[in-house]
Amino acid sequence: MTLRFTIEAQDGGTAARAGVVADERGSFRTPAFMPVGTAATVKGVWPGQLREMGYGCILGNTYHLYLRPGHERVRSLGGLHRFMGWDRLILTDSGGFQVFSMSALRKVTDESVSFRSHIDGSAHVLTPELAVEVQEALGADLRMALDECVAYPAERKEVEDAVRRTTLWAARSLAARRMPEGGMLGIVQGGMFAELRRRSVEEICALPFDGYAIGGVSVGEGKELQRETVDRTAPLLPASKPRYLMGVGTPGDLLFAVSRGVDLFDCVLPTRNARNGMMFTSAGPMTVKQARYRDDPLPPDERCACPTCRAFSRAYLRHLYVQGEMLASMAMTVHNLSFYARLMERARESIFRGNFTDFMKESLDSGIE
Amino acid sequence: MTLRFTIEAQDGGTAARAGVVADERGSFRTPAFMPVGTAATVKGVWPGQLREMGYGCILGNTYHLYLRPGHERVRSLGGLHRFMGWDRLILTDSGGFQVFSMSALRKVTDESVSFRSHIDGSAHVLTPELAVEVQEALGADLRMALDECVAYPAERKEVEDAVRRTTLWAARSLAARRMPEGGMLGIVQGGMFAELRRRSVEEICALPFDGYAIGGVSVGEGKELQRETVDRTAPLLPASKPRYLMGVGTPGDLLFAVSRGVDLFDCVLPTRNARNGMMFTSAGPMTVKQARYRDDPLPPDERCACPTCRAFSRAYLRHLYVQGEMLASMAMTVHNLSFYARLMERARESIFRGNFTDFMKESLDSGIE
Repeated sequence: MTLRFTIEAQDGGTAARAGVVADERGSFRTPAFMPVGTAATVKGVWPGQLREMGYGCILGNTYHLYLRPGHERVRSLGGLHRFMGWDRLILTDSGGFQVFSMSALRKVTDESVSFRSHIDGSAHVLTPELAVEVQEALGADLRMALDECVAYPAERKEVEDAVRRTTLWAARSLAARRMPEGGMLGIVQGGMFAELRRRSVEEICALPFDGYAIGGVSVGEGKELQRETVDRTAPLLPASKPRYLMGVGTPGDLLFAVSRGVDLFDCVLPTRNARNGMMFTSAGPMTVKQARYRDDPLPPDERCACPTCRAFSRAYLRHLYVQGEMLASMAMTVHNLSFYARLMERARESIFRGNFTDFMKESLDSGIE
Repeated sequence: MTLRFTIEAQDGGTAARAGVVADERGSFRTPAFMPVGTAATVKGVWPGQLREMGYGCILGNTYHLYLRPGHERVRSLGGLHRFMGWDRLILTDSGGFQVFSMSALRKVTDESVSFRSHIDGSAHVLTPELAVEVQEALGADLRMALDECVAYPAERKEVEDAVRRTTLWAARSLAARRMPEGGMLGIVQGGMFAELRRRSVEEICALPFDGYAIGGVSVGEGKELQRETVDRTAPLLPASKPRYLMGVGTPGDLLFAVSRGVDLFDCVLPTRNARNGMMFTSAGPMTVKQARYRDDPLPPDERCACPTCRAFSRAYLRHLYVQGEMLASMAMTVHNLSFYARLMERARESIFRGNFTDFMKESLDSGIE
């Protein structure tokens, strides 16, 4: 494994840190948000636009790519980077989250998880070994060990089983590695049970992963329980490795987790909300479809310099949204992703200055949620 | 009126010519294709991408913009250019074509056309004066006189009435002008009746327009009759003014009309077909959804250097299309519009060389339709 993580600065008043993740292909700075490119495309944007926004790593979904177009097809076409025209880093999830949230007729044993495709009902068996094989065929830089992700609420027994299985699968995932480039991250489970989280941290962090993720959040637990879990779990993860909070969240959620020492994030919110007419701004969320914006000549966010805010008014974006024009989704996606990128950049700068607390307070005071 | 048209070169063996259309805002070279931006957006592309492709003039649809978001709203927001973030030229149609093809319960008199909106059934009355007022409120550079467009097939009497009314309305359109910038083009009707076309040309070209359009084609008449009509009508239009063939067509249709001395074109084909998975290439049309492209690593057109052909394979575009991803439409639209832009540029270069005939023959021989 050649994934490297260098910490460049530690904040004064919080556990926030700024660093760099690097492998053979390139590097990106942390704290970092990673846009979600489910089916080998971040919906509504060109790869070049992601580069211009400063993104150095995006996400691919193993479950989706395994089903369509198929990992062997992607491999034979030169890997996921070439396939989708993206030359910076890619992180793939293990497929576990989608198998547990999207597929039908799941059956989990210690050996594997059997499921039916949400697309055509076809039967599949996912093992830790297959999850690694698929991710290596895709050529992802950062690969995730297969975990069992439990929805909230869940019985303690169910979560305990998932923790045990996740540890078994983590060890098998490491043993299944063939690809020398990049690295693999382990995932901590444990639901909202403090003791099970601790147990999962101990077991997963005992294994030689290149980074550690907090999984099993953003599964219906709500903001308060989620933050409790992050607050409790992040400090237990090795400080020298990147920490990744999976599937979270709003700008405010990200700032909170950064203050607790988390480095990596992914979430569909900025892209999905854009398609629903919602923009994140420095003054809080804006729902552009509202009639009040019909004649509003201002840009979505007066403090934003993204291509959308430079060229388009709220009135125009509302018009596009109401008309169902593609450019509505395209432009609002570019704005939201620019907003997330800039938020992480500014967080990073404040960590270098040693005053992340002030930056976080100002951001929340201005209306960020 | 300050619209200027300068002819820079005449082809040797055909009536093709190369020129420049200019007004206060800017200029663009002819022969020129103008992408259609119906509802104040060329579907699936950013204004900056249109600039990069070299487009100097795009189309807006008066009927659509009048209904939504409303021309007074666009005016109060600074005009169509500012509204949609496009700083080069805009041509607006008169609304006539859409009123006659999309709206319900039409009633035409010499005075006006009454219709109901295709969106909400609301009642409207369009007059030549209103068509001019709407286009001037939008701030279009090239504005079209209201015409009566007749579908094919039609009785001679119906077409004759439309020719008469179109002439009446043309004179009223000129009289209704208030905006000094840019210019206004008249539209020739006459259906597929040679004599009525001649009559319409005589009547319309006797009026002091800044350019003349062939309307009433692409209304169901088929390729052969259309070309006959172009062949017959284009030479009758004043050579010193820009000639505009409305709503046409395929790359082959454009080359044919250029050879007959037509300068301007608009058509939804490159953008609409892109959204349906069809690309224009130098070897002919390509339907990317076909299973044969599933593993095809080649770019859509090996002789194309557009952003899509530089970055994406047929296999990737097929994957995006099958998945229903926005990037499929976005990337294929960029390819098709790049193809049309490049076709017109190369036509222009061949006119300067005096061998448009060779260029046209080579293009058709290679598979262009």
